[in-house]
Amino acid sequence: MPGIDILFLSKEDVDALELGLQEVMDAIEAGLKAHGEQKVIMPSKDHLPLAYPEKLFNILKGYVEPVNVAGVKVIGDFQKNYEHGLPSELALITLYRPETGAPFAIVDGTLITWMRTGAVTAVGAKYLANEKPRVLAHIGARGTAWYNVPMLDLLFDFEEIRVTSKRPESRERFAGEMSEQLNKRVIVTDTTEAAVRDADIIIDASRLLEHQILVKDEWVKPGALIQPYGAVLSVERTLPFSVDKMLVDDWNQCQQSQYGQFAGLIQAGELRDEHIYGEIGEVVAGLKPGRESQEERILFWHKGFAISDIMLGNLAYQKAVEKGVGTLLNYYREPQDM
Amino acid sequence: MPGIDILFLSKEDVDALELGLQEVMDAIEAGLKAHGEQKVIMPSKDHLPLAYPEKLFNILKGYVEPVNVAGVKVIGDFQKNYEHGLPSELALITLYRPETGAPFAIVDGTLITWMRTGAVTAVGAKYLANEKPRVLAHIGARGTAWYNVPMLDLLFDFEEIRVTSKRPESRERFAGEMSEQLNKRVIVTDTTEAAVRDADIIIDASRLLEHQILVKDEWVKPGALIQPYGAVLSVERTLPFSVDKMLVDDWNQCQQSQYGQFAGLIQAGELRDEHIYGEIGEVVAGLKPGRESQEERILFWHKGFAISDIMLGNLAYQKAVEKGVGTLLNYYREPQDM
Repeated sequence: MPGIDILFLSKEDVDALELGLQEVMDAIEAGLKAHGEQKVIMPSKDHLPLAYPEKLFNILKGYVEPVNVAGVKVIGDFQKNYEHGLPSELALITLYRPETGAPFAIVDGTLITWMRTGAVTAVGAKYLANEKPRVLAHIGARGTAWYNVPMLDLLFDFEEIRVTSKRPESRERFAGEMSEQLNKRVIVTDTTEAAVRDADIIIDASRLLEHQILVKDEWVKPGALIQPYGAVLSVERTLPFSVDKMLVDDWNQCQQSQYGQFAGLIQAGELRDEHIYGEIGEVVAGLKPGRESQEERILFWHKGFAISDIMLGNLAYQKAVEKGVGTLLNYYREPQDM
Repeated sequence: MPGIDILFLSKEDVDALELGLQEVMDAIEAGLKAHGEQKVIMPSKDHLPLAYPEKLFNILKGYVEPVNVAGVKVIGDFQKNYEHGLPSELALITLYRPETGAPFAIVDGTLITWMRTGAVTAVGAKYLANEKPRVLAHIGARGTAWYNVPMLDLLFDFEEIRVTSKRPESRERFAGEMSEQLNKRVIVTDTTEAAVRDADIIIDASRLLEHQILVKDEWVKPGALIQPYGAVLSVERTLPFSVDKMLVDDWNQCQQSQYGQFAGLIQAGELRDEHIYGEIGEVVAGLKPGRESQEERILFWHKGFAISDIMLGNLAYQKAVEKGVGTLLNYYREPQDM
């Protein structure tokens, strides 16, 4: 064995790969399917809290059988990073061979996290939205917002896209750039109510530091799909119990990991097994039906899981090898059994 | 803020730093002290088991206040890697700034794991061995063995060093190289009994795949210090209850992490709070006495913790910056708040 090399991909390298929205969604869908078919190993993510909720690291790890890759992502969640001109989530994904545990890729996870989250949002909507969703409401104008909106629009070609967020400057900038990218008007609203009422798909990618009700139950119309996935509860506590179906990405992880949108309800013993219709992977794998009527109100909570990071990290690695992108690092020149 | 760079250190880079045994022990001792003084944040390590016990990853994470660094280590435990000419434990340590979560170093953790484990063994013995230990018995001749023995000998200048292991060729090779390095005879024994009986310090760094009694309680003489730290129980189940004092590195982690020497006894409810005298950090920090009589039989179980990896990873980083060693990677060229 001639030593071990690791391919390093910076944020700019990942950018240079120009991964297409569709291929990203395809990779993520394949990961969800593998999860549904139990062709993965994925203990719950866990956390290194420096000062919760403002400063913490999330650590995700897993193995995906169809691509035969193990991986770990370390991702910061530093909500004041905009003061440094940095995204709140800086991340490193490391990929490993399951035969020996040898690392073979280190990939910036910042862009990949946004992409993979956007793709889970979109693939979730593909299976759970009503037949012809017309109006998208998006809360939040940073990070994952840059992928949620175009991926959803690629699937559904919305008649109306509404965006709101806490800071006017970020929502204006986001709407402006997104209008140009999608070549259609993106409406900015001042309030979440104006964005959410009568929308067919509601994505809540807000980043609160403490509980606040951004979406009231009554604003979620019959037939709507809502996906809130912030770190802190941003909807009414009653939402999981007022919808027709609640789905998650991984119920074990939702119960184990102490943070996230509905974690408090789970810890309080209010949100339990019997409230969860299923996991999105089961629907993608065809083991459970998704939406069964045009009137159903469906809630899909994705906390985010390692499988998606591994799928997309591996896609980036493969593309980079093809295109000759990245820095090849010699990690271990003279393997020997010591 | 002018972008984010990461310094990468390969196994050969870490080697080239020529870290001294004493400075490594000093860094590790400072980490143990910080742990004892509760100047660290360290949730339990956890695991990604691909096929336990032959193929798994351990994932360690923490923050050390005195050096103000957060870190994560991903380390494989692939016990058949010698068939590929690779060490069973290949590892990557990533270090992060606690202000923003930005990564600043990626360091091969293979050598560092051996060194830090050796240093915890040695510092443990510094506080827990009897006054003038004469005979060292070492079980295991790979990985951490290369640091356990010289670090202990640096502290104690033994009259007799005995080594044994499963495979004759590895123990012969180890004893040969160690004799040369220490400039004293290292005795190879065929049986663990011959190595262990009457020894003052007994280190069991064996790597079993299933429980086997390598050390009987009656072979551990009065006044001896024994440190067994394999992944699988390698002593009698009665040892923790027959010694005068049992110390661990981190009792919370010992209870949380499902693997390691005495994990089964903890899970069975046999080994409990009241059997644990204390943590080594408490002794190093002067909060609890270590050895109190020359007749005490003391058991110190170090599972290994993130604090040590962060201390030594950071020492390697600082040395590398001083000496201009390593590869500087541009991770994030144009920070921006998206």
